[in-house]
Amino acid sequence: MATTTSAEPALDSEADGLYAYGLPHQKHWKVVTSKPVNYEVRFRSGLLDPGDPTLVSAGAPASHIPQRRLLVVETQVHALYGERISAYFSARSVAHEFCVIDAHEQVKTMESVFTVVSAMDRFGVPRRREPVIAFGGGVLTDIVGLATSLYRRSTPYVRVPTTLIGMIDAGIGAKTGVNFERHKNRLGTYHPSLTTLIDPAFLRTLGQRHISNGLAEILKIALVKDARLFGLLETHGTRLVEGRLQSVQGGVGKGVAEEVLQRAIHGMLEELQPNLWEHQLRRIVDYGHSFSPLIEMNALPELLHGEAVGIDMAFSTALAHRRGLVTGEQQSRIRQVMRALGLPLWHRTCTPELMARALDETVMHRDGRQHIPLPDGIGFARFVDDLGHTELAAALADLVPRGSMARETT
Amino acid sequence: MATTTSAEPALDSEADGLYAYGLPHQKHWKVVTSKPVNYEVRFRSGLLDPGDPTLVSAGAPASHIPQRRLLVVETQVHALYGERISAYFSARSVAHEFCVIDAHEQVKTMESVFTVVSAMDRFGVPRRREPVIAFGGGVLTDIVGLATSLYRRSTPYVRVPTTLIGMIDAGIGAKTGVNFERHKNRLGTYHPSLTTLIDPAFLRTLGQRHISNGLAEILKIALVKDARLFGLLETHGTRLVEGRLQSVQGGVGKGVAEEVLQRAIHGMLEELQPNLWEHQLRRIVDYGHSFSPLIEMNALPELLHGEAVGIDMAFSTALAHRRGLVTGEQQSRIRQVMRALGLPLWHRTCTPELMARALDETVMHRDGRQHIPLPDGIGFARFVDDLGHTELAAALADLVPRGSMARETT
Repeated sequence: MATTTSAEPALDSEADGLYAYGLPHQKHWKVVTSKPVNYEVRFRSGLLDPGDPTLVSAGAPASHIPQRRLLVVETQVHALYGERISAYFSARSVAHEFCVIDAHEQVKTMESVFTVVSAMDRFGVPRRREPVIAFGGGVLTDIVGLATSLYRRSTPYVRVPTTLIGMIDAGIGAKTGVNFERHKNRLGTYHPSLTTLIDPAFLRTLGQRHISNGLAEILKIALVKDARLFGLLETHGTRLVEGRLQSVQGGVGKGVAEEVLQRAIHGMLEELQPNLWEHQLRRIVDYGHSFSPLIEMNALPELLHGEAVGIDMAFSTALAHRRGLVTGEQQSRIRQVMRALGLPLWHRTCTPELMARALDETVMHRDGRQHIPLPDGIGFARFVDDLGHTELAAALADLVPRGSMARETT
Repeated sequence: MATTTSAEPALDSEADGLYAYGLPHQKHWKVVTSKPVNYEVRFRSGLLDPGDPTLVSAGAPASHIPQRRLLVVETQVHALYGERISAYFSARSVAHEFCVIDAHEQVKTMESVFTVVSAMDRFGVPRRREPVIAFGGGVLTDIVGLATSLYRRSTPYVRVPTTLIGMIDAGIGAKTGVNFERHKNRLGTYHPSLTTLIDPAFLRTLGQRHISNGLAEILKIALVKDARLFGLLETHGTRLVEGRLQSVQGGVGKGVAEEVLQRAIHGMLEELQPNLWEHQLRRIVDYGHSFSPLIEMNALPELLHGEAVGIDMAFSTALAHRRGLVTGEQQSRIRQVMRALGLPLWHRTCTPELMARALDETVMHRDGRQHIPLPDGIGFARFVDDLGHTELAAALADLVPRGSMARETT
């Protein structure tokens, strides 16, 4: 048998290959390999213009004829865009079927994944050459990502985010997932779409609360690594919400929406690329995501994801302020931007006990360490590992609107 | 922003990194990275000997104290070995809990995965430092592999296969999976255990039919790539079954069982290592696995996996014989070995229609191509892509016991 040696070099130093030890009869093998992963994120206006081949050619071998596509579309997106989507594929002679599903946190479950899997079975999705296309927000793309990841142990898909949070966060990373027994994203995989196609025109029909929801994740990137982005949000916050991040021709705001979107995406991808499988559990993009998973699941269905992230960011900023990492003036500016973006700073379900439990669960998720990113000034972050329950309670008290605690406890 | 270029080199030539195109405002990013994967397979006799640290140290940082382990154990394995397993961990001061589940094809479902996930939640498995340990056959390790793969998007586990098929096939690769709506392994991931520990002593309590079940996969490796292994099976087949592949001290058979196990494992790993994620869909280890998925699921619960693989191998050999790849004498030897190993060559549910449908489903799984491996003599294989339904029916007729068709159709 080939490729054998009786030495036992350190695993780290081994190149890809099969190593067998303990001749003449092997007693021990090491398999050393690596999985290449490439994916792309691309802006494309006019994605549903029948003259544009981008959408149908994304992720598919051009040689495969006839083309077929299963389209998984969120219910409201289907109501708004279903006809245009169908017309697009018909015009390009692509046989297609819709799988229309609801997608929000309460149905972000394996049941929804099974609905997509059954649709894939019925449509007859082959192993690789007919990527499933997902149209919707982050919940929908997370569900489709998991379904395609599991189907035949990995089937390609393409994401077309239709919400702001989908365009700059959920739809551009590798994570897929669903909630399980009220644990946020407890089940999932790392399975990026081959391509994510971003057409900001979808934001025109998005409710303002969902614009704010996405701006929370943009503010996150600004606070931990991009002071210029924070400045843009500070200067243009209200206008960005009201204008739904559409491009403004002429005037003071020209190019601002584009720059905000692009800086948010670039900043996020810079953090994800070297750590796509989270081998490193100290992640600055976890800012706003240490306490929010439990806050969000506990308050269901009241808070959107970005709203829970907003509360976590306000809370973490209060922690940072108490530790002298953020000045009072910086904290005020951050809170002011959050208000302008339409984000909550607190929710009545946030008790000291809940925050303590959220920290415990996050420690389990970070393999026994806190690894809590806190803002360090504006545009920088640092990690702390020694938060105590008293400190959490004090920071929470800084956030609670005057009189609320009394109201809650009587 | 860093790492930008306006050229668009071919994706294949790009090193790991984040590539941004379309300055000054980025319109297009490529994420290029790779996931390193290392795992080991190790023989270890006396695994449950409390003096041996192998089992508790597998896959765990030695620095993490106190140690805890969730043990997922197949029902019959728990009845036979539960006390010894518990005594082992107690003796080594490792807090442990059992999750005992049934594991056979009919319960190889997401429901069983959820049972394991709930046990992980109750036990409080942290992200990485307390690998789940799976004791059982291939169905059990496939279920635990999928549960740990999904849990927090990937949690480590260790496999202790207790069946022959687990030791040389299901328990040493990367695939995890469950059946979905009677489709064999339709949902799954690639998630090898950090370590697979093989103690052949577990085979002493395995039923003879399950020994034959595993020998089917060993015969597969022999036929497609290891003529010496075929010779060992030909010379010692009956004795291997009856002796349950235990080491025989002295006598003619000395060392045969060890060599058979080791050649089977080595041959399998040689095929898996360079193609762990099945980017290449022409796999000689798919010999016996082109028609068997449907045969097995269709005949449930009558056929074990290896039995369905045996029927597929006999059928594929008949196809190879009709094409002149295997002589009549070679085909007879193959069938003789199958009988000695206790494997069926045919099942009454195998109709020409079923075989045609099985081929269609496999073509879907191989992205539109047949890629059917056939034996090319003994110890070699080649692929064919042009099987027709008439040829399938003729090869099937070669296998059907005299009089069976008449019986079935009257």
